[in-house]
Order: sequence, then structure tokens, then C-alpha cells
Amino acid sequence: MIEKTRKAAGPRAYEAVLASIEAELRTGRLNIGDRLPGERMLSEQHGISRASVRDAIRVLEVMGLVRTATGSGPTSGAVLISNPAAGLSSTLRLHVASRHLPVVDIVEARILMETWAASKAATELPIDEPALARAKELLSLMDDPDLDRESFHDLDSQFHVLLSTMGGNAVVSAMMESLRLSIMDYVRNSVTTDEQWRPVEKTLRAQHHDILDAVTARDGELAGRLLREHIEWFFTETGS
Amino acid sequence: MIEKTRKAAGPRAYEAVLASIEAELRTGRLNIGDRLPGERMLSEQHGISRASVRDAIRVLEVMGLVRTATGSGPTSGAVLISNPAAGLSSTLRLHVASRHLPVVDIVEARILMETWAASKAATELPIDEPALARAKELLSLMDDPDLDRESFHDLDSQFHVLLSTMGGNAVVSAMMESLRLSIMDYVRNSVTTDEQWRPVEKTLRAQHHDILDAVTARDGELAGRLLREHIEWFFTETGS
Repeated sequence: MIEKTRKAAGPRAYEAVLASIEAELRTGRLNIGDRLPGERMLSEQHGISRASVRDAIRVLEVMGLVRTATGSGPTSGAVLISNPAAGLSSTLRLHVASRHLPVVDIVEARILMETWAASKAATELPIDEPALARAKELLSLMDDPDLDRESFHDLDSQFHVLLSTMGGNAVVSAMMESLRLSIMDYVRNSVTTDEQWRPVEKTLRAQHHDILDAVTARDGELAGRLLREHIEWFFTETGS
Repeated sequence: MIEKTRKAAGPRAYEAVLASIEAELRTGRLNIGDRLPGERMLSEQHGISRASVRDAIRVLEVMGLVRTATGSGPTSGAVLISNPAAGLSSTLRLHVASRHLPVVDIVEARILMETWAASKAATELPIDEPALARAKELLSLMDDPDLDRESFHDLDSQFHVLLSTMGGNAVVSAMMESLRLSIMDYVRNSVTTDEQWRPVEKTLRAQHHDILDAVTARDGELAGRLLREHIEWFFTETGS
């Protein structure tokens, strides 16, 4: 990004702050949980305006690297946090909205990452009891016949992100989390009426239980296959 | 992201502009290549300050969704572009620097995505002559015995991104492109001296040629296996 912006439009003043924070994170001089220096100190340190320092803090906030206090100026109480999924998610959503990331590619990418994670969780990793308990809880919430559609879509996408998190890879988890809202969008938009939705919902429920049963039974091959069939079934069935 | 920020610190004024642009991209009222309305119009439209409008434009710029003209204010000549990899890359780099995305997870994620893409390119997709020609060109540039290390790392990472692009999935390509600089970092840092580097470089060259030969011969299983061995070999060999 920094490279590209530079090519397109000359270096931006705020980039000096980003580069310096990246370097200090790398050497360990800065760590997650640390408070950033104040606006005036950063401004003097990099020889840039306080407006440019505020730009940098905003950018770090959007990237999921900084949390700022409510109601105050952007640099008062800027604390380093680690929320990669949040930073990646907002960017991916906007690019999907611009249609340069086709839905069929999102479906293919999630099949790749989710089947890998579910198989790995079922075969290679120790049983993650809290994650399994949470997955069961999500399924029982989705079994409620009075649940509204929007809540179902939300719980459904949480269940899938949770499954991919069980693969134990922070990059894959961040990428799946970053696709979550885009996935919710295509699922929501592909079934228009409640009459269409009811039978679909019933099938999805049964498929979810079968997938989780396979993970619990430590059958990685079956878990991966059922997950692929589940995602492909919905996509073809609803012609989304 | 927008959700999380809201939970952590209340809604931000600039988020209204982001949400509105997302909605207009979705409905097609805005398209890539379009010029955004001016600062004053956006400010009146959303009932927010011009400073908040500038925040929004900066954020969109970092996300790879907007290009602004050099030397002018941030909103003069803001044009919608589509550079998802740029937006994702800067975020991932900072999170890797903060060590909450471990290198071993990047290695595992790239093996997953690259082997999938190379296998798919070799077995399912029509031969992409321009991409193959570019891949051959990258390999012959890397064969130059006088090439400096930094250029080798750069060409090497380009070769791997190109291979994953040949799988034809825009989400996977964007994710691999977004990992490119992080991959260059760990490769560069894992071999410290030139004495260590020379024999490693020789092996990498031979492996690259074998992988591309397998893709050209349409042997997806071999291409995937060689690619996995190549990435794993470097990671274990250099103990990075």
C-alpha cells in the first residue's frame, strides 16, 4: 500500500508514522497494550503536522491496530491492540461491494479454507472443548423455530468462522473472519422470500449438525467433505 | 471493522461516508473509475465536518479504494480504484510486525493457497500463455548469477504470487498478494549471511524450474507437491 500510494501520488506524511510504528513493533520496542506517544510528540518526532499524525492514528484504527477513547481527540489514549480480522474485513467488504471480488470466488476461497481447517481440527489438533461447546450452542440457537432470518444468518456465519478458527491458524482465521460479512451478504440476498427460506433453513440445520458430529467424532475426511457439500449445495440450490 | 469500532468507542463520523460509498458501490450507482463528490458536498450530504470527510478519504485511500491527486487536498480528484491487495497488504504487514500473526501460520496459509492454485492451473484451467511467459521470464531473471539478494527476494515473491494468480480466484490472489511483503520479510530475515545464501539460492532456482515445468506439463498433483516441498524445505532449512 505504502509503495503503491507513493507511486501514484507521492509519499504521504502519515506514512512516516506508520513505518516507524511498524519498525518499533518488529524490534519489540512497542508491544500490544502499549499507549502511543501523544500527538505533539509524534508530530515533533517525524517533523510532520499534527493533522498528519491524526491521519496516521485514524488509519491504524481502521487497520485494527489502535483503539482510541470515545469522545476525545483521535490521539488521546491511543492504545495498540491486535484485531487483524477487523482491519481486513472492512477492506474486503468494500472491494466485494465494488464487484471486483466475485461471489463465486468467495465461495471457492471459503471452501478451500474451511475444509482445510475442519479436517485439521478433526485429525491433527487436540480437542478444543470450549470451541466445540460454543459450536454446539450456536447450533442449538439456530434450531429455535421462532428465530428470525437475520439472526439465523448471523449465527450461521459465526458457526463457519468458528469452524475455521479450530484449524489453529491465525492467518486463515483472520481471512475467514474478514469474509464473514461478505458471506452473510450473499446468503441473505440469494434467498428472497420467507417461503423459499423455510425449507432451505431446515436443510442447513441438518447439515450443520452432521458437520459438527464429524468434527467431534474426529473424522477429518468426512468433516471436510460434508462442509464442501454444504457450501456447494446452498450456492447451487439458491443460484446465488 | 465498523461494528467493532462502534462497540469499542462509539461510531465515528467518517464511517457514515464509508457506509454510503459501500451502499452505492453495491447498487452500481458508483463504479470503479468514478470521481467522488467534492469535500463540501460529502460534508453536507452526511451532516459531518469537512475534517471527517477527509478522514474517510484517507481511510479509503489506505484500503486501496481511492486514488487522490498529488499535492492537492485529499478530496480534490478522489477517484475510485480497485486495489484490494494494496489495502490488505499494509494491514497484514503491521499485524505480522506486532507478532500476533506468527510466521509459521503465514507459511501454512501460503502452502494451502499456492498448492491449490498451482494444481488448479495445471489441471482445470486453460493454459494461460501470458502468465506462463511472465513466469519463465521471472525464473530467467533469477538465474542471473550476478543478481543481488534483494532483487532475488523480490522476483521470488512475484513468482509465487503469479503462480497463485493462475488459479483464477480473485479472493485467493488478493490474499496471496497481501502476504507478499510479509513473505519477503521472513525470507530475507531467515538467511543472514551471503555465505549461507548462495547454496540456498541455488536450490531455490532448481525448485522453481521444476514447479513451473510441472505446471506447463499440466501435472497438477506434481506441481502441488513440489510447491509444498519447496516452501517447507526453505522454512525448515533456514529455521526461520
